[in-house]
Amino acid sequence: MCVFFFVFFPCYFAVSLFSSTKEIWKIIMSPNFFATTGAGYHSESKAKEYKHVCKRACQKAVDRLRAGAMALEAVTAALIELEDSPFTNAGTGSNLNLCGDIECDASIMDGKSLNYGAVGALTGIKNPILVARRLLNEAQKGKLSYIGSFFLFVSFLVGIGAQQWALGHGIPACPSEKMATKFSLSAYRRNKRKMEQAEKLETVEIMVGHEEPMSASLDTVGAIVVDQEGNVAAAVSSGGLAMKHPRRVGQAAHYGCGCWAENARDARPYSTAVSTSGCGEHLMRTMLARECSTAMQTEDAHQALLEAMQNKFIGSPFLASEDGVLGGVIVLRCCRCGEDQSSDNFQALLVEFLWSHTTESMCVGYMSTHDSKARTHISRLPPGAVAGQSLAIEGGVCRLGVTD
Amino acid sequence: MCVFFFVFFPCYFAVSLFSSTKEIWKIIMSPNFFATTGAGYHSESKAKEYKHVCKRACQKAVDRLRAGAMALEAVTAALIELEDSPFTNAGTGSNLNLCGDIECDASIMDGKSLNYGAVGALTGIKNPILVARRLLNEAQKGKLSYIGSFFLFVSFLVGIGAQQWALGHGIPACPSEKMATKFSLSAYRRNKRKMEQAEKLETVEIMVGHEEPMSASLDTVGAIVVDQEGNVAAAVSSGGLAMKHPRRVGQAAHYGCGCWAENARDARPYSTAVSTSGCGEHLMRTMLARECSTAMQTEDAHQALLEAMQNKFIGSPFLASEDGVLGGVIVLRCCRCGEDQSSDNFQALLVEFLWSHTTESMCVGYMSTHDSKARTHISRLPPGAVAGQSLAIEGGVCRLGVTD
Repeated sequence: MCVFFFVFFPCYFAVSLFSSTKEIWKIIMSPNFFATTGAGYHSESKAKEYKHVCKRACQKAVDRLRAGAMALEAVTAALIELEDSPFTNAGTGSNLNLCGDIECDASIMDGKSLNYGAVGALTGIKNPILVARRLLNEAQKGKLSYIGSFFLFVSFLVGIGAQQWALGHGIPACPSEKMATKFSLSAYRRNKRKMEQAEKLETVEIMVGHEEPMSASLDTVGAIVVDQEGNVAAAVSSGGLAMKHPRRVGQAAHYGCGCWAENARDARPYSTAVSTSGCGEHLMRTMLARECSTAMQTEDAHQALLEAMQNKFIGSPFLASEDGVLGGVIVLRCCRCGEDQSSDNFQALLVEFLWSHTTESMCVGYMSTHDSKARTHISRLPPGAVAGQSLAIEGGVCRLGVTD
Repeated sequence: MCVFFFVFFPCYFAVSLFSSTKEIWKIIMSPNFFATTGAGYHSESKAKEYKHVCKRACQKAVDRLRAGAMALEAVTAALIELEDSPFTNAGTGSNLNLCGDIECDASIMDGKSLNYGAVGALTGIKNPILVARRLLNEAQKGKLSYIGSFFLFVSFLVGIGAQQWALGHGIPACPSEKMATKFSLSAYRRNKRKMEQAEKLETVEIMVGHEEPMSASLDTVGAIVVDQEGNVAAAVSSGGLAMKHPRRVGQAAHYGCGCWAENARDARPYSTAVSTSGCGEHLMRTMLARECSTAMQTEDAHQALLEAMQNKFIGSPFLASEDGVLGGVIVLRCCRCGEDQSSDNFQALLVEFLWSHTTESMCVGYMSTHDSKARTHISRLPPGAVAGQSLAIEGGVCRLGVTD
C-alpha cells in the first residue's frame, strides 16, 4: 500500500517593508514521494518544535492509513494532532481575540463525495476540525437538518450555534482556559498593553510603523492526503489573528478559500487537494484553494502552480490595493496510470506534490506508509527576497505502484 | 443619464416530487432596458404584494441614481427597501430560527474596487445590508482593523460580534420583536407544533412526505445595478431558512455564492453583476454567483447563462446526490460601445440582462432613470415543468447612449 500524505503548519509575522520588484525562483527538489508543509515566518529557535509537531501529525495520519482508513479519516487524525499542539495557532494554543477569548475556524472537504463541513468563530471545543468533520458526515448521510419537503444539509455553522450543535452531537466541551497557553496569554497581555498605549495617544494609526509588531503565534494548520484508492481529502484549522475582532471569520472556515479536494472524474483528469495558509483576507478574496485546484488540471503542475500564485494571488485584481500578499499553499494532484489499468488488483498513481509561499517561510512535513518516519522541511524565501511580493515554489513527482 | 437597475426577491416552497427528465426552455422577451427579478414559488394571491415591494425598491434605487449616486449606493438603497418590507424574508419579516430568533445574512460587492463586505447570523439590526456595506466601506478606506505591521481589513463578521461592530460604527440596534411580523410569528408557531408532533412520534424522518410542508416566507432578496459611469454593484440579503439551526450561515453571507460584481478590465471585456436566490446550500456548493459571472465573459450571454445553469448548477457534480437543485439568478453584463468611444462626453453601454431559475417562480422588477415607474414580472416555470430539474431563462439586450 502506498499513500501520499502532506501536512503543513504555517505562521506569519509582519513584514513591514515591501520592494517594488517581484522576484520568483524555483528550488528543484529531488522527487520525493510524500510531503508535509507550512507558511509564514519560522524562527530558527522554534524550528525544532514546528518540525516535531509536523512529524507527529504525519505519524498519526499514516497510522490511520496503514489501518486501512480512507483519506478523510487520515486528514482528520493529522489535524487533531496539529490542533492539540500548544505550538500551533489552532485548537489549543490559538491566538486570543480582542476580548481574550479563543475563537477557531476549521473546514474539511472530501474529494470523493465533494462534501464539505465548516465551523467559524467556534468557542469551547478542543478540536474544531471534529465539528467540521461531523457536519460533513451528516451531509454524507443525507440526514435532514430541516423538516419539511426539502432534504437540506447544513454545511456551515458559527459561534455558539456551532458549539451547541457539537455538544448535541456528542463532541465534549472544553473550557477556553484549558486551550490557552502560557505563550498565548503572555502575547495577549503584551498586545493589550500596546493597544492601551495607542489609545492614550488617541490614534490607532500611530501603531503603524511601530518598531515592535504585535505578538502572534503560528497561523493556520492544514493537511492534504491521497489514500490507496486514490481518494483525496483536505483540511485546515486556525485560531485566527491575534487580537481579532470577536466573531471575525477567516479563510479556514470559507468554502473554496481554506481547503479544497476533488477526485478525478470525466473531463477532469487529475484528483487535487489543496490547503492554504497566511493572511485570511488575502486567501478569501482570491479563493486561493479552489483557484489552485482548478489550475492544476493543465499538464505542467509546477508551471500551473507558479502561474496561479503569480496571477491569481500576488497579481490578483482582488488585492490590487494591498502592498503585499501573504500566503502559502500545499497542493497535490494525482492520476491513475500503469501498465494494466484495467485490473482491479493493480493500482498505480502518478502523484505530484508542490508547495509555494509568499511568506518568509513555510514548514512542511511528509510521509508515506512505506516510510518509518516523517520528513520535515522549513522552506524559506532566499535572503533579501521580499515577502508578500516574491514566492518560493518547491515540489516533486513520483509514481506509486501499489499491488494489493 | 441612463442606468440599468435590477432587483429581485425570490422565495421557495418545497417541491416534493421531482421527475427524472430535465426540461429547458426559453422565453424570448422584447428587449427591455431595465429589469428587476426574484426566485421560488409566488402564489397568485401574494403576487400583488411582491410586485409592489419590488416597485418601491426600484424607485428608491433610481431616486439615488438620479441624484448622481454610484451603483454601490443605489444597490444599498434598494436592499434597505426590500429588507424593510414585512413581506420579504430579509430584515423585518425574516423567518424565525429553531429558537424563535431572527438571524440574518447579507453581503455586498463593488465591481469597481472589487471590495466586499458580509455579515452572517446577525441579530438585532434592522438592516443587515447596512452592516455589510459599512464593512465594505472600511475596506475601501483601507482602515486598519488590526494593529501591527499588517494593513488588514475584515470582510466577514458573524453573530454577536457583527452586532457589536455595527453598534460601534453607529448603526442602531433594533429589538428582534420589532422585526418579527404576524406572519413570521404564526408560521413559527405552526412549524413548532409540527416538530413537536414529530418528536412525539419519536422520529423526525416521518415528516418527510408529510402532506403539509413547513410554513416559510419568501427567500433571499437581491439587486444588481449599473450606474452611468458603467460601474456595477450587487447585493443580497436573507433571513435564512425557517426553523434553521441557530447560527447557520447561508449563501447570502458567502463570498462568491450570494452576489458578485466585477467591472470590465484588461482581458475581461464585460462588467458583470450577479445576485442569487434559492436553497442556500445549493448556491453555496456551486458558488453560483461567481460561476455565472465568469461564464458571462463569452460572446453569447443567453447561451452562457443557460450553460452555466445547466452544467454548473442543475448538473453540478457538487450536488450529485441531490434530487433537485433549487435557485435563481439575476445577471447583468455590459460593455462600452458607441461611435465615439474616445470622447469623454459620450458614453454608450451595451447592456444585457437575464434571469433564470429552477424554482417554480421568480419575481423581477426593473427600472431605469428614464422610466417614470418600475415594471415588475413574476416569471414562472410552465405548467407541468419540474422545479429543481428544469429551468426558465429570460432576458433582453439594449444599447444605452448617454451624453452628459
